[in-house]
Amino acid sequence: MDKWPRVVIVGGGFAGLYCARKLRKADVRVSLIDRRNFHLFQPLLYQVATASLSPADIASPIRTILRRQTNAQVWMGEVTKVDRARQEITLSDGLRVHYDYLVLATGATHSYFGKDEWERNAPGLKTVDDATEIRRRFLLAFEAAEREADSEARRRLLTFVIVGAGPTGVELAGAMAEIARQVLPTDFRAIDTTTTRILLLEGVDRVLPTYPPELSRKARIHLEKLGVEVRTNARVTEIGREHVAIGEERIGAGNTFWAAGVAASRLGASLAAETDDAGRVRVQPDCSVSDSPNVFVVGDLASLDREDGSRVPGVAPAAIQMGKHAARMILRDLEGRPREAFRYVDKGDLATIGRAAAVARLGRMKVSGFIAWIIWVVVHILHLIGFRNRALVMLQWAWAYLTYQRGIRLITGDRQVELHRAREIEE
Amino acid sequence: MDKWPRVVIVGGGFAGLYCARKLRKADVRVSLIDRRNFHLFQPLLYQVATASLSPADIASPIRTILRRQTNAQVWMGEVTKVDRARQEITLSDGLRVHYDYLVLATGATHSYFGKDEWERNAPGLKTVDDATEIRRRFLLAFEAAEREADSEARRRLLTFVIVGAGPTGVELAGAMAEIARQVLPTDFRAIDTTTTRILLLEGVDRVLPTYPPELSRKARIHLEKLGVEVRTNARVTEIGREHVAIGEERIGAGNTFWAAGVAASRLGASLAAETDDAGRVRVQPDCSVSDSPNVFVVGDLASLDREDGSRVPGVAPAAIQMGKHAARMILRDLEGRPREAFRYVDKGDLATIGRAAAVARLGRMKVSGFIAWIIWVVVHILHLIGFRNRALVMLQWAWAYLTYQRGIRLITGDRQVELHRAREIEE
Repeated sequence: MDKWPRVVIVGGGFAGLYCARKLRKADVRVSLIDRRNFHLFQPLLYQVATASLSPADIASPIRTILRRQTNAQVWMGEVTKVDRARQEITLSDGLRVHYDYLVLATGATHSYFGKDEWERNAPGLKTVDDATEIRRRFLLAFEAAEREADSEARRRLLTFVIVGAGPTGVELAGAMAEIARQVLPTDFRAIDTTTTRILLLEGVDRVLPTYPPELSRKARIHLEKLGVEVRTNARVTEIGREHVAIGEERIGAGNTFWAAGVAASRLGASLAAETDDAGRVRVQPDCSVSDSPNVFVVGDLASLDREDGSRVPGVAPAAIQMGKHAARMILRDLEGRPREAFRYVDKGDLATIGRAAAVARLGRMKVSGFIAWIIWVVVHILHLIGFRNRALVMLQWAWAYLTYQRGIRLITGDRQVELHRAREIEE
Repeated sequence: MDKWPRVVIVGGGFAGLYCARKLRKADVRVSLIDRRNFHLFQPLLYQVATASLSPADIASPIRTILRRQTNAQVWMGEVTKVDRARQEITLSDGLRVHYDYLVLATGATHSYFGKDEWERNAPGLKTVDDATEIRRRFLLAFEAAEREADSEARRRLLTFVIVGAGPTGVELAGAMAEIARQVLPTDFRAIDTTTTRILLLEGVDRVLPTYPPELSRKARIHLEKLGVEVRTNARVTEIGREHVAIGEERIGAGNTFWAAGVAASRLGASLAAETDDAGRVRVQPDCSVSDSPNVFVVGDLASLDREDGSRVPGVAPAAIQMGKHAARMILRDLEGRPREAFRYVDKGDLATIGRAAAVARLGRMKVSGFIAWIIWVVVHILHLIGFRNRALVMLQWAWAYLTYQRGIRLITGDRQVELHRAREIEE
């Protein structure tokens, strides 16, 4: 086993994890390195941000997932540099690791289109910590409003803006509207949470721009039914602590959340390979890096065009397929067989809108409403890794569905209520 | 309703919450103020610290618990001052609230016996954030050890010290030993987690000093079976980043956790009433403060002697009983009936040691082992507030019991692995 080639996989998301698993019977030594000790089921992260699920429901320790795979070891650490000439990577603490094959799968992060100062006022949703931070801000706004005496400040506290109407933005907006209108009203005495404004802003002319126009229309109707104000062709020009500007228009909003741009993680740049405008690494048809057939880039970090000229999308199924493809190419090398081009199998699109509605495209079939929502539930439950999580998430969804309750409404962390002018409770 | 007397309750722990609920049919306006938006079921907090439960499993939003109690409102905020002469409290943001009755139930926090510099190296366990921090440090130690090349540093990383062998210390030590020996071994490749050292230090001559000596003996036997090294009559003289000293003896330990002293929360001092050596407010037999019959102090913040001279202990049942008693005294005032002295009904003691053992005293009956553990499970499940939490916790315990798995092994937050000398993975 000591003579087996070493495959270093950086990143334990969908691409990296499925790559490692695909190599489980191969005569290679797999080292999976991640900054976190857990694999995160990112498609459900918005449910953590909106207090429906706990972080642990959608995350599993990578070690535990791979514990029976004897050719794999897991390291917790952050890779900061790749040296293709020496075939070695460097970790933030100086550790250097030699590789025979390298699979980079570090994914994407938010991009504020050069306006990095917006980040503080409009957090995005990529990590567990992001999700608990959004949950904290969202819930804290109602607590502050309950104690706020100034009606304009109260109005501002109860206005939430979500920038970007891709799947994440749509799902966040739907869930937030639902909580404000259906879950919270009986909890508060001084404020009427059904007056909460949720604005969903999108720069182009429809929500879910990558979906078929028909589903965009349906999604918009569902969102508006839930009380979300959808604004398309709305380009944000400024995000302040208590307002958002669209051109000349200024909207008072206590909280803004970012679901607009993504950029590849920084590690891509250290490869010194060609990248696209979002920093993604342009890969060869087999997912390897030009001039380095032993280096693969997969998942959201990779930029690869399909035969029809469109890009392989940055979604979980594509990441899984690319991760498995890289593993397959390594196996082919070992068997002395030629490489093959990656072919993305498009299984469709799915996005949920609140409690019992979704839009789905399955191949050429388009569905919306309750049936689409059932499909969404089944697909997501089946893909959650680990039996425990599946059972727990199912139970919590069933509970939330039957009772309209949300269980995880905890405000943790240090910063607490800040008020503009406190409501007097002295008579 | 506007003319009803205002009862301000500070603190939404057991004492405050049960006081509020007891007043649900009374002609009073209840305002419950807490720094957090949730009630925490503190007896199970060690299970969050040891990755068995999620924070949301043992916490419920106070608003939701009280949402049907129409005479109650909930405010999130921190009370910093009490002015008994003006009958008013002040919040950290300057808001002042007038009261007719005040019930202080802000509980206790850690005390490092004047050695506040120990706190950084030996976090205690009182809040949800404390619990996730302990979980993070505990799990991170194994991650660091897996990558550590230096055998002495590795040994140090795998040595954990718990200071204080009251119920919290005993439960933490038992759970940690169990995880290290029964859950983690298959997850790691380079280290043998069964060699983990868990030291439980206690200053007096036995563990669980407030329990009957017979149960202390049994608890110690159970702990040692799980591999915990119990050291009694061991007074800690120093806690450093990587060591603990007991007199002249120095023990290398990567992590130390504090379960020794408690002190009353600071608010007690602002009352300007007589306090005991731990800062608890000495209360009258009816739980009110001397000279202020309309101010009650209940739960861990109160110091009250029983008829036999012993103090009412700082445990959940006592807090619940005192909270209800204060409510009852307010009701008696309104009905023009005389006050009564508080009588603590001692229902017994319960502490669990690992997966299927506990020690219990129920009145005069003493039980240990599996039967005691079943009693422990039933008592804790029944007292968890909210059906959702009960069902989920039960499911997770059943799962953990059957599979020896722990689901919540997530390392969140910013600080990551710090290594002494990285294990080389370059050949």
